[in-house]
Amino acid sequence: MIIGIETGGTTVVCATATVPQAIIDVETLPTTTPGQTLDRVGAFIARHRRQDGVEAVGIGAFGPLDLDPDSPTFGAIGVTPKQGWEGVRILDRVREAAGCPVALETDVTAAAMGEQRWGAGAGLTDLAYVTVGTGIGVGALVRGRPLHGLGHPEAGHLTVRRHPDDEFAGVCRLHGDCLEGLASGPAIAARWGRPGEALGDRAEPAVAMEAYYLAQLTTALLYILSPGRIILGGGVMQLPGLLDAVRTATVKLLGRALGHHPASDPASGFLARPGLGQRAGVVGALTMAADLARNDRQS
Amino acid sequence: MIIGIETGGTTVVCATATVPQAIIDVETLPTTTPGQTLDRVGAFIARHRRQDGVEAVGIGAFGPLDLDPDSPTFGAIGVTPKQGWEGVRILDRVREAAGCPVALETDVTAAAMGEQRWGAGAGLTDLAYVTVGTGIGVGALVRGRPLHGLGHPEAGHLTVRRHPDDEFAGVCRLHGDCLEGLASGPAIAARWGRPGEALGDRAEPAVAMEAYYLAQLTTALLYILSPGRIILGGGVMQLPGLLDAVRTATVKLLGRALGHHPASDPASGFLARPGLGQRAGVVGALTMAADLARNDRQS
Repeated sequence: MIIGIETGGTTVVCATATVPQAIIDVETLPTTTPGQTLDRVGAFIARHRRQDGVEAVGIGAFGPLDLDPDSPTFGAIGVTPKQGWEGVRILDRVREAAGCPVALETDVTAAAMGEQRWGAGAGLTDLAYVTVGTGIGVGALVRGRPLHGLGHPEAGHLTVRRHPDDEFAGVCRLHGDCLEGLASGPAIAARWGRPGEALGDRAEPAVAMEAYYLAQLTTALLYILSPGRIILGGGVMQLPGLLDAVRTATVKLLGRALGHHPASDPASGFLARPGLGQRAGVVGALTMAADLARNDRQS
Repeated sequence: MIIGIETGGTTVVCATATVPQAIIDVETLPTTTPGQTLDRVGAFIARHRRQDGVEAVGIGAFGPLDLDPDSPTFGAIGVTPKQGWEGVRILDRVREAAGCPVALETDVTAAAMGEQRWGAGAGLTDLAYVTVGTGIGVGALVRGRPLHGLGHPEAGHLTVRRHPDDEFAGVCRLHGDCLEGLASGPAIAARWGRPGEALGDRAEPAVAMEAYYLAQLTTALLYILSPGRIILGGGVMQLPGLLDAVRTATVKLLGRALGHHPASDPASGFLARPGLGQRAGVVGALTMAADLARNDRQS
C-alpha cells in the first residue's frame, strides 16, 4: 500500500492505492493550523499503517518549499502568507508519522508527474503543468524529472504587460500587478466585483482579459522551457471558453516566433486540460510514493 | 585535436585545441552566404584534418535549430531573417567536411557549456547564459545538460511590460515590441539615434531603461527555470554600469518573491559576467567536441 498527500491552501487530500491511478481510500481534510492539519494527516497515515502496512508516502505540497537535500531547512515551507505555515518542516513531520520513505515535491510538480504518467502528458518527457486558482503556479518536468534549479518554479510572479483596458491595481501582496496579482481567482473576483463563475454579462470581457494574461505565461514557458505540452488546470480554468481563448491568445502572441510549432495551432491540443481533472496532484503524489517503494525494494 | 566552431550573425570563429580552454589556432571568418561560409569552415577543418588529425567537431550555431534527432530536418536552421540561411543543413555540411563525430547546439547553449566548465558557472549544474547584442538569446543547462524540450529556448521574444517613458515602437520584425524589439543593440541604436557605445549624455536614461527590460528576463528565468547563476554576455552588456543596473532592477522587481535568494543581493554575483569573455561560445563548442571525442574513444 502507498499513500499520496496533496496539501492545498484550503484542503488536504490523502489517498491510498496499490497503483497510483486506482485510488482505494480518499479523505479530504480542511487546511487549518499546521499542527492540527499535520496531526490529522499523521492519523490518516497511522490508521493505514496499522490496517494495511504502508511502503512509501508521496507529498505534493503548496510552496515555496526548500527541496535542496543539502540545506539545513530541507523539506520546510519557505516565506508564505499562509498564517503559521512559514518554516513548517512538513517532510520531517510526515516522516515521523510514516516510518517509511517519504518523497516531497510542490503540488504543481506532483500534478505534472501525475499527468505525465496517467493523464494528458502521457509519453512526454518535457511538460509544464499550470494551475490557475487562488494563486498561479507552474510545475515542470525536464527529461522526465522535476525541474529544480536553486529552487522550484514560482511562475505566478511573472511580470506581465497590462491589458490596455485594465485599470485594476492587482491583488499580489508582493507586487500588486504581477501575473498572479492580475489573473488569479481572487484578482478576477476583485476586478469584476464577483467571482469568475458568477460573471454573468461580464464573462466575455473577463475571459478575454484573463486569456491575454495567461497567454503571456504560456508563451514565456514556450520561450524559456519549450515543453512538449502545457496542461492548464485549477478552478479558474473551468470558466467557459477560457481554454479556447488562451489557445487563441497564445497563437496571436507567438506570431511566427516558433515557426510551425504545435502551440501555433489552437486545434493541436498543445494547451490541454488535465487528464486527471482535480486528482492530478494526489495521483502525482501517489506516483512519487510508488517510485520510492519500487526503488526501495530494488536497493 | 578537436575543433570548435561558433557561427554568429556577422562572424564565424573556428578554433582548434587539445583541451577546450587552451585554444591553439583560431580563425575568424565573415558570415556571408551559407555556401561560401560553410565552404570556408570546411576548408579550415580539412586543413587541420591533414595537418593534425581531428577527433571531433563541436558547433555552436545561431538558431533556430532543429535539434530533434528523430526529425527529418535534424541539424538544419529554422525560420530566420538571415538571408539564405533558412533550411541550411549545417550539421550535415560540417559532417561531410569533418569525417568524424560532430555535435551541434545553439551558440548560447554552447556558451553556457563553456562557462559551466571553464568560466563563471564552474561547479554549477543549473545555469542560464544570456546574450544581449544584435538579438537576445538564452541558453540553459538543467542538471548539467542542455535544456531542450520540443525546441531550445527562444527567450528574446518574451513579452515585456513597457517602461513608462518608452514610446519607441520596437524593432522585432515579428512582434515589434517584445524584449528583443525593445532591448537589443539595434533597438537601443534606433530609439536613441546612436549605438549604445556612443550614447554620451543619454547614457544614463538609456542604461536605466535597458536594465528595466533585462530585469524582466532575469526574473522570468528565475521564476521559470531557477538557475544557480545567470551569466550575461554580448556586446550590449559592455555598456558602462549596465550589469549593476540590471542587478539593482532585478532585486527591485523580485521584491520578496524568492525570499533570501542570492539574486536578491546585488553583491552576490548571482548575475555575472562571462568568465570566458567573447570566447564562451567557441570554448563551449570545443567542450562539446572534447566530450564527443572522449565518448567515442570509450565506445
